[in-house]
Amino acid sequence: MNERDKNGPADDSREVCEPTEGGLSRRDWIAGLEKGLLILEAFDFDNQRMTSAQVAARTGLSRTAARRYLLTLEHLGYLHSEGKTFALTPRVLKVGWSYFDSAPLPRILQPFLQQITGQTGEAVYASVLDGWDLVFIARNGATRVMTTGFVLGARVPAQLASPGIVMLSALPEQQVRDWLATCAMTPFTPHTITDPDQLYALIAQARQLGYAVVEQQLQTGVRGIAVPLKNRHAKVIGALSLSLPMAAEAREQTLARILPALQQAANALINLV
Amino acid sequence: MNERDKNGPADDSREVCEPTEGGLSRRDWIAGLEKGLLILEAFDFDNQRMTSAQVAARTGLSRTAARRYLLTLEHLGYLHSEGKTFALTPRVLKVGWSYFDSAPLPRILQPFLQQITGQTGEAVYASVLDGWDLVFIARNGATRVMTTGFVLGARVPAQLASPGIVMLSALPEQQVRDWLATCAMTPFTPHTITDPDQLYALIAQARQLGYAVVEQQLQTGVRGIAVPLKNRHAKVIGALSLSLPMAAEAREQTLARILPALQQAANALINLV
Repeated sequence: MNERDKNGPADDSREVCEPTEGGLSRRDWIAGLEKGLLILEAFDFDNQRMTSAQVAARTGLSRTAARRYLLTLEHLGYLHSEGKTFALTPRVLKVGWSYFDSAPLPRILQPFLQQITGQTGEAVYASVLDGWDLVFIARNGATRVMTTGFVLGARVPAQLASPGIVMLSALPEQQVRDWLATCAMTPFTPHTITDPDQLYALIAQARQLGYAVVEQQLQTGVRGIAVPLKNRHAKVIGALSLSLPMAAEAREQTLARILPALQQAANALINLV
Repeated sequence: MNERDKNGPADDSREVCEPTEGGLSRRDWIAGLEKGLLILEAFDFDNQRMTSAQVAARTGLSRTAARRYLLTLEHLGYLHSEGKTFALTPRVLKVGWSYFDSAPLPRILQPFLQQITGQTGEAVYASVLDGWDLVFIARNGATRVMTTGFVLGARVPAQLASPGIVMLSALPEQQVRDWLATCAMTPFTPHTITDPDQLYALIAQARQLGYAVVEQQLQTGVRGIAVPLKNRHAKVIGALSLSLPMAAEAREQTLARILPALQQAANALINLV
């Protein structure tokens, strides 16, 4: 059950919706759209194929309602069924893909990412926050990490990677603390920090330094460096980052080599984003 | 207006839907879901920011209905508004992205793509058909095309690239001929074939050869080679392909170097997909 469910109608079959928190009036609310999107998002690595009962359990819909959504989505070509289970089709990619086709930010960033790769010889990423996840929205690459690195649209819990830490450091302190105290932290390596206080110290350090260095949180032997991407109102709207194998270079050496290129690009972007 | 609209209800405000062609019964149809997804797909390179009037014009909805959908999608976090215009947020990526997280095909393909890159030193792609578009669902890469090549989820008119030609060659002849006769062909290079008969000849040749070679249809100086990806029922479910600069090598030389690696991987995959 996600954040949105607090606002939307509790059941798709309900005819009368209360006015919602965000100020959307009842007559403007399209019943059915929220639950349908929630169902598409419910398919993931651990839930590749689901029956209507499984979808019902994951979304809080009744089994009958879940089945209607699944059949509608199958009819629209977003799902296909085998026996009683449903799975996503490549058609769903069209929905997400339109972001890269249509959003100005990834295209504005591209030449700056190319410049960073030119200066450093490294693959570089741009990301934004979506809730408490960071999402990679642009990148430019060198060979080394390209085949194993993050691809566009990949999504990572914000506290596990340098761009996430640097973006979290721009949010109101109490909001971040409250979230850290309640979110479930999955360790990805023996070094992954799961203690809220330690994580908050990392975030506070990034705020003070103006950049983040994060080591082995998501992958052993990998160090990430990120700087905030600010707009002309000094609002942090994203991050520029790169990931490097730690064995190749000492931390200070990497910072001296990488940080100026990242900061220069971020400065040049201030009046463009 | 796309294919789906022939099946679904003509207007979201309509309370009674006719039974649909595909056999989905009226009581299983979720009104609102189709139009909402259609609106998300309506944002593209030429329509990055749209007013409710523009969305209405592109989707066939009334302006009032379009506005309700836009406000609902904004409330759900899929759109943000500036003044009277709406644009996609990175949240839409979550919908498409779940395909890569959840669909078994891309993951099954990955080690075989790695093998092809190992044997040829080239970036290699796997794609499937979605309607008359081909969609890249997996890839493994070498430097050269990685920074400029197709990214996961990219979508190309099927007749313009080798994997598309090889997948079209597996469809019923009349169906492909009918489509070629009616679809609008945009030339991307001076060499792009827009004549239906010439395109059909290319498709027929691919059917006969068991692979496709396509030159300069989408990009000048680039040659694509593709083989069909078949399942154990001999049904073509996708294609393996790579793109190479034509200047570097003669066509026969490229085929001799590349084709065995592609065919070997496709053969090994027959019992796995």
